[in-house]
Amino acid sequence: MADYDVLTIGETMLRFTPPGVQRIDQAPYFELEVGGTESNTSVGLARLGMNVAWLSRLPANPLGRRIARTLAGQGVDTSHIVWSANDRLGLYFVEFGDGPRPTQVTYDRADSAMSRMQPDELPAELFEPGRARHLHLTGITVAISESAAATARRAVELAKAAGMTFSFDVNYRAKLWSPEQARAGCHEFAAAADIFFTPIRDAESIYGVSGDPDSALAQLQAIYPQATIILTLGAEGAIGAAPGRPAISQSVFPAGTVGRIGGGDAFTAGVLYGYLTDTVAESRLATALRWGAAAAAFKYTIPGDMPLFEKEEVEALLHSGNQAPQVRR
Amino acid sequence: MADYDVLTIGETMLRFTPPGVQRIDQAPYFELEVGGTESNTSVGLARLGMNVAWLSRLPANPLGRRIARTLAGQGVDTSHIVWSANDRLGLYFVEFGDGPRPTQVTYDRADSAMSRMQPDELPAELFEPGRARHLHLTGITVAISESAAATARRAVELAKAAGMTFSFDVNYRAKLWSPEQARAGCHEFAAAADIFFTPIRDAESIYGVSGDPDSALAQLQAIYPQATIILTLGAEGAIGAAPGRPAISQSVFPAGTVGRIGGGDAFTAGVLYGYLTDTVAESRLATALRWGAAAAAFKYTIPGDMPLFEKEEVEALLHSGNQAPQVRR
Amino acid sequence: MADYDVLTIGETMLRFTPPGVQRIDQAPYFELEVGGTESNTSVGLARLGMNVAWLSRLPANPLGRRIARTLAGQGVDTSHIVWSANDRLGLYFVEFGDGPRPTQVTYDRADSAMSRMQPDELPAELFEPGRARHLHLTGITVAISESAAATARRAVELAKAAGMTFSFDVNYRAKLWSPEQARAGCHEFAAAADIFFTPIRDAESIYGVSGDPDSALAQLQAIYPQATIILTLGAEGAIGAAPGRPAISQSVFPAGTVGRIGGGDAFTAGVLYGYLTDTVAESRLATALRWGAAAAAFKYTIPGDMPLFEKEEVEALLHSGNQAPQVRR
Amino acid sequence: MADYDVLTIGETMLRFTPPGVQRIDQAPYFELEVGGTESNTSVGLARLGMNVAWLSRLPANPLGRRIARTLAGQGVDTSHIVWSANDRLGLYFVEFGDGPRPTQVTYDRADSAMSRMQPDELPAELFEPGRARHLHLTGITVAISESAAATARRAVELAKAAGMTFSFDVNYRAKLWSPEQARAGCHEFAAAADIFFTPIRDAESIYGVSGDPDSALAQLQAIYPQATIILTLGAEGAIGAAPGRPAISQSVFPAGTVGRIGGGDAFTAGVLYGYLTDTVAESRLATALRWGAAAAAFKYTIPGDMPLFEKEEVEALLHSGNQAPQVRR
Amino acid sequence: MADYDVLTIGETMLRFTPPGVQRIDQAPYFELEVGGTESNTSVGLARLGMNVAWLSRLPANPLGRRIARTLAGQGVDTSHIVWSANDRLGLYFVEFGDGPRPTQVTYDRADSAMSRMQPDELPAELFEPGRARHLHLTGITVAISESAAATARRAVELAKAAGMTFSFDVNYRAKLWSPEQARAGCHEFAAAADIFFTPIRDAESIYGVSGDPDSALAQLQAIYPQATIILTLGAEGAIGAAPGRPAISQSVFPAGTVGRIGGGDAFTAGVLYGYLTDTVAESRLATALRWGAAAAAFKYTIPGDMPLFEKEEVEALLHSGNQAPQVRR
Amino acid sequence: MADYDVLTIGETMLRFTPPGVQRIDQAPYFELEVGGTESNTSVGLARLGMNVAWLSRLPANPLGRRIARTLAGQGVDTSHIVWSANDRLGLYFVEFGDGPRPTQVTYDRADSAMSRMQPDELPAELFEPGRARHLHLTGITVAISESAAATARRAVELAKAAGMTFSFDVNYRAKLWSPEQARAGCHEFAAAADIFFTPIRDAESIYGVSGDPDSALAQLQAIYPQATIILTLGAEGAIGAAPGRPAISQSVFPAGTVGRIGGGDAFTAGVLYGYLTDTVAESRLATALRWGAAAAAFKYTIPGDMPLFEKEEVEALLHSGNQAPQVRR
Repeated sequence: MADYDVLTIGETMLRFTPPGVQRIDQAPYFELEVGGTESNTSVGLARLGMNVAWLSRLPANPLGRRIARTLAGQGVDTSHIVWSANDRLGLYFVEFGDGPRPTQVTYDRADSAMSRMQPDELPAELFEPGRARHLHLTGITVAISESAAATARRAVELAKAAGMTFSFDVNYRAKLWSPEQARAGCHEFAAAADIFFTPIRDAESIYGVSGDPDSALAQLQAIYPQATIILTLGAEGAIGAAPGRPAISQSVFPAGTVGRIGGGDAFTAGVLYGYLTDTVAESRLATALRWGAAAAAFKYTIPGDMPLFEKEEVEALLHSGNQAPQVRR
Repeated sequence: MADYDVLTIGETMLRFTPPGVQRIDQAPYFELEVGGTESNTSVGLARLGMNVAWLSRLPANPLGRRIARTLAGQGVDTSHIVWSANDRLGLYFVEFGDGPRPTQVTYDRADSAMSRMQPDELPAELFEPGRARHLHLTGITVAISESAAATARRAVELAKAAGMTFSFDVNYRAKLWSPEQARAGCHEFAAAADIFFTPIRDAESIYGVSGDPDSALAQLQAIYPQATIILTLGAEGAIGAAPGRPAISQSVFPAGTVGRIGGGDAFTAGVLYGYLTDTVAESRLATALRWGAAAAAFKYTIPGDMPLFEKEEVEALLHSGNQAPQVRR
Repeated sequence: MADYDVLTIGETMLRFTPPGVQRIDQAPYFELEVGGTESNTSVGLARLGMNVAWLSRLPANPLGRRIARTLAGQGVDTSHIVWSANDRLGLYFVEFGDGPRPTQVTYDRADSAMSRMQPDELPAELFEPGRARHLHLTGITVAISESAAATARRAVELAKAAGMTFSFDVNYRAKLWSPEQARAGCHEFAAAADIFFTPIRDAESIYGVSGDPDSALAQLQAIYPQATIILTLGAEGAIGAAPGRPAISQSVFPAGTVGRIGGGDAFTAGVLYGYLTDTVAESRLATALRWGAAAAAFKYTIPGDMPLFEKEEVEALLHSGNQAPQVRR
Repeated sequence: MADYDVLTIGETMLRFTPPGVQRIDQAPYFELEVGGTESNTSVGLARLGMNVAWLSRLPANPLGRRIARTLAGQGVDTSHIVWSANDRLGLYFVEFGDGPRPTQVTYDRADSAMSRMQPDELPAELFEPGRARHLHLTGITVAISESAAATARRAVELAKAAGMTFSFDVNYRAKLWSPEQARAGCHEFAAAADIFFTPIRDAESIYGVSGDPDSALAQLQAIYPQATIILTLGAEGAIGAAPGRPAISQSVFPAGTVGRIGGGDAFTAGVLYGYLTDTVAESRLATALRWGAAAAAFKYTIPGDMPLFEKEEVEALLHSGNQAPQVRR
Repeated sequence: MADYDVLTIGETMLRFTPPGVQRIDQAPYFELEVGGTESNTSVGLARLGMNVAWLSRLPANPLGRRIARTLAGQGVDTSHIVWSANDRLGLYFVEFGDGPRPTQVTYDRADSAMSRMQPDELPAELFEPGRARHLHLTGITVAISESAAATARRAVELAKAAGMTFSFDVNYRAKLWSPEQARAGCHEFAAAADIFFTPIRDAESIYGVSGDPDSALAQLQAIYPQATIILTLGAEGAIGAAPGRPAISQSVFPAGTVGRIGGGDAFTAGVLYGYLTDTVAESRLATALRWGAAAAAFKYTIPGDMPLFEKEEVEALLHSGNQAPQVRR
Repeated sequence: MADYDVLTIGETMLRFTPPGVQRIDQAPYFELEVGGTESNTSVGLARLGMNVAWLSRLPANPLGRRIARTLAGQGVDTSHIVWSANDRLGLYFVEFGDGPRPTQVTYDRADSAMSRMQPDELPAELFEPGRARHLHLTGITVAISESAAATARRAVELAKAAGMTFSFDVNYRAKLWSPEQARAGCHEFAAAADIFFTPIRDAESIYGVSGDPDSALAQLQAIYPQATIILTLGAEGAIGAAPGRPAISQSVFPAGTVGRIGGGDAFTAGVLYGYLTDTVAESRLATALRWGAAAAAFKYTIPGDMPLFEKEEVEALLHSGNQAPQVRR
């Protein structure tokens, strides 16, 4: 049995948030959260009972250590973090909106310790055969810097060599790169992925797919035929297809909005959990989508970035309602 | 004139609550509330202008004293509390949910000072004729321990001997006992009650009544013909009947949800207020139900367990809208 | 070019508010806000890029200085404030309601420093020709005291002499005076105004106008034919007409409710901004109303009394949706 | 046995305090306390086990009710409060200093409901013989207004007629009156008092006494020979003498500073407790002074104005250390 | 190399604390801490870089999970915790005193999940040879219940069989047992210990030792000749001796008081760290005492129960000042 | 008369601080302050009644605007700020220590908007003759980047050309540069200064001066004979000398420690205030030093970086005690 079910690599930031819907202008203090797409997914997986290692590069200062300890407290293995003596931690500021005032995010992540990670800083022992079953990466790591992208590329090579499966989430951020850059940057990862996640709106802007979800899915399958492709559709749920199998759609579980940030990462955690625990081809994708939908909905109820749920809670939600996955014709 | 309009006996706990909809996992601090069904009702009655004594057994430590002082600050007479040198205070933890995440209550009330109250600890002077007009008890006291049940039983005997009227609210808690135990435990109290309160869902599970509210009410009347029976119907309001008089239904006043905990106790306070101030048989139940509905709705707007309203506020709400009680048939 | 685009005069109070929807009874602390109709409007104008001076009389104690510094921090010129050695600051207490519990405001403003302001305390230099373009006053200043009313009257005379334009907002407060007193007190100001603002409900009670908004507007035009009249209609938006030009209606931008207090003042700020920046007769009122509607809606999203928006944010909202002003008939 | 051991009359204000040592300028919120010299003393007496009624005039608004409920929660009888429909509540603002920055108190108490109390508003039933044993007043009530002074005067007459004993504390406040006014205003109260409290510094400025404490005490005894006189000496403790008995001095118990406000009122509570429970002439004053010193020291450790101690705690402190009263000479 | 440097077993409670020096009576909320002597020591060891497993029995509810996650966040291995479906979590309430008001601790730990732990719930795999180097227990586990004591006894047997070393800290709690009970209960643990910790005041009351620290140490050595005995002396530091070696004394590093709770546990962590990293007989005890003193002093500066220091910080303190251990005689 | 008494240029950061003495590790939120040596001094000057313009380069995002508005609220002119569309704001994190745990500052200021300011961004109109009387700069601006240093250099040239006086404070920061770099970087500023400030410890490390303060001062006078030199001595106060006049020493006013950060900047504000208001050669430096000492001591009592005092408060402190400046020999 592998030491780790899932290995994730990515950047995690300290998040500052005015209380409630106060403006940054008027808040006497900022609440602190720890947020990063890969670490959020790691927390979700750990809370669902999986062994997860999260790999990153952090400054060896109180801010960096806070990131590591917060994730360790969620059951994520942080023992492989690469500590940097000099670099800074990425930060971001979230001001929650109300009504016509949009939620406003101010990033301050340039030159972060993670953006300066080098391929040779990857710990070799994590990629020994049998050490980990699955690697999960996102497009953010590819976008933040050349060396981070090279590190991600090297991680995929090592994972493949070790017989690990691999999932990739585009996670497009317009503040980091253009759709063209994203397509170029993500291509080799998507082409290597066993599971490829993308929101339909990003599939449209990056890959130029069009039409309804079924059609968009088919177009992506044509580009990346080797991958199980999962297209998220916002309030319409998700649709996915494994190679050579019928598409399956999944509707959303009704949910609140207090914890929308990190909902997509919780979805990914649920999908990976289902994918790694149900290995029967006939049910695998349906199981994965259903866990994804339930995990995302539950996350929507939890303040902060991390999906602080118990497995039993997600399971209870999953068995409620009528959100059964539907096989598409 | 009696010293007290109403005497209540029961357990009150200290409640701990994470701020907002935070999870217990993530809250840096817990807000404090004082909550117990009988004390909540007592506070409602005191704020409506009645003289109310609340009787309980509390540990003589800072936590127990906090309970007593909080209630005294609401105008409830706490001078008859039985102080215990050694026992603990019952506690409970409320985590408010959001969307599909349910509000989660963790009780920690075993072996509380009140659960160890003995019948001979009842202060005799409270049951002297003319001292109090009315006694109110709930099924929770019967459920928490043998000695508390015996104490409640003895209180009813003493009250009857002193010529007091008596109301009983089943207040079924599945974490304390089964429906069968509740029926057995509550029977003698219901059979002695001048007013008997129960939610329709508990009437169904405990007494096996069925059918629409009118029918359920009639079935309960057959069991406890001596009592004015008040059946609460959730969002459908309430229905009740005094012996030998037509049933009367009462719809709810529209309300928020911030203060749902304690809404039922505020309803009881309103009903008892109406019942004790309007003693004309023709209007009594209608008055009681209307005050109950208004008090409950107003409580729904107030954070915490206690109905922190002014009489004028409830009265203004009561005179608004179209929530007039309806005579059935 | 004038030093100030707008000069406003009025009373600003310190506001105390229990957190969330807590009752004044139960709050362990009160949050602090700075609120006054004229200063709120001044802040809105300053944030839209105008030069605004706010004139008032404040006690020279920590509370008075807090008012001045808070407004200065918003870009409002506070250098002309008249400091009083002995008087008190007006205060008010807001308890936010929920559901059927109304928001409850307790004023404690009697004998405030501003209510004791005298006409001869008006700084002459502010009324030199070319110093300021526009004067804005509200009925509150007329209502709070004889000497404040006399001061307002003198300010209008000085402004007229200096060639300034003048706007007046009835801003009726039932706790300060009766509709009859308001009509008598406001008349000379309305009769001198270039812009006259009133909610339709106050126009009805004070001026006895009746009928639909178009009709009510026409009736007011008959009384004050010299003024551009702006009638606010709550959720129905606003309607206005400049002398000799067709009426124009403006619908509201959808908005939340967290920041309703001060929404009207933000509307006034938006209107004055539009009025002072677009001086083409054909478009002036439409521009003013659209800026007013957008500013008000944005304010609705911001806790506290002051419209803490950026000009770009209001502008973005203004260009969204379908809230274009409509020419009537 | 009397219903009340002690009856006190006076003004109580709502206190606003920035957290910690923040300035009023910079605090995002103000903490709330309830403070008044007579109510503070009442709370101390109630916590020591005495029956105490506090009488005042309060506005019937949320602020006034908060005062009443807070005191009721401390065990003080508030059923005789006179409620005013229109007046305001006295307020005060405390900014705690640090090092050379002095603690700064801003009063806003003019025209408070209590300052408008009239003699005929005194509830006659409180002054029936046997109703209460002792009346306690302070110079503040005499200072705040003519009608409050008249009310205090009338209360002394009624108390004397009912056979009650009477204590009076000068409690000089320079912001309310001059030493000359204080002497004139307080004289008839001091001349009627069974116990007369004054700090030595006020005795110097108001009565012109001089010299060491023994000498100052003797000079006051010459003026008010009927009274037990208690002279407080700050860090040097207190000295007192009953008519015809030797002077007794009492040193202070070492204490912190977090709760200095209200320390003098706790001292008075302790003295009255000792005086009313030990009626043996030989030990009475010594008992009173020792309880006063212990109560004051314990109060010094408690944030806020009110002495939130338990009797057992004060008693334990009283029996510790070497602060035994000393007979002089 | 062993998986764990240290294995600890014991009870950890959730701690509730009013902010600052507020009384439990007056606090609007309670801050949350996680505290237990063995887990505090575990956190200290983990932060000094050791691999530590903490073993306990916790309720499988949000409170129990909070304990586990908090400790995991500090780097302590919590994977061996025994989860109980029904029991409660031990709680305690700390009210910090000021001046003569003592810090007051109210325990509510009866019938906790840990107190119901059974010997056969000890995970066998933790006691396999080579799994862990050292076992640490305290007298609290022996005191809380028969079954916990039996569990502790069994753990020592298993540890000895696995070749682990063993340390025992009396940690006498007067609220749990009498000195006589403590002596009887602790004897077999002390007699089996490689390191035996006790404060001198407990050595006096439990073992009847007397005289100066050197003498008290010698008396304890006579009873438990096999153990390195460490006697803590409060402000005088500590003194200790290994079998057959001279006694060594260690003075304290000057420190604040904000974080006194848990200071002793940090001392133990420092001693164990020194003892396990310096295995040279000549320097071992001196190294251990010095790390203990530095760790304790640093903990004194940190709010809460856990020693949240970095190894570099303790090391820097350790190399400062003149607190070198002294060989006695 | 000049528009501005003082013009300052420099970087101001947003400061994040855990509440109380919590560690960054454990704080649920961070309090926000605005701090920068030049802006702190500007606030002090504005509060003492001077007209001050603060010039900097800030990012046009919510964080940058918060800086500007906070300073404007203190009366500092912020209308000349250079707004940058893309750059980041400098940040710093302060964890307050206790006892042996040092206060720990983590800077995150690299690549801030101010560090990228260019000489040609200096607003020409600020340097027109008669616009401002005095320019104040510090070594931090010289240290943070080449372009900031060039900007500072150009500002001095422009100021000299406009006839302004100039003061320079070394304000050495070891995290920014070495003593050698500081000497090289600061030399031309010191050589141009009318007033030159330096702590004695920095004078020692940067300029190699040695001996007692009188001697160190004499050595600096030899290097910069044109300047009034002010040497700060920590707890020993300060010593200074104007060209050709005797040295004058100033002791400190006793003060607390809650507001130590920014104390030196308040000292500078006090000195500049005295220097610019007392232009009589005989008394000028003594006046300046006394205001500096009083302003610094008062700042020590105020949480945060900014000296939130009133002129009257500093003046009262200045006239208290025996801290008169002493002429040396």
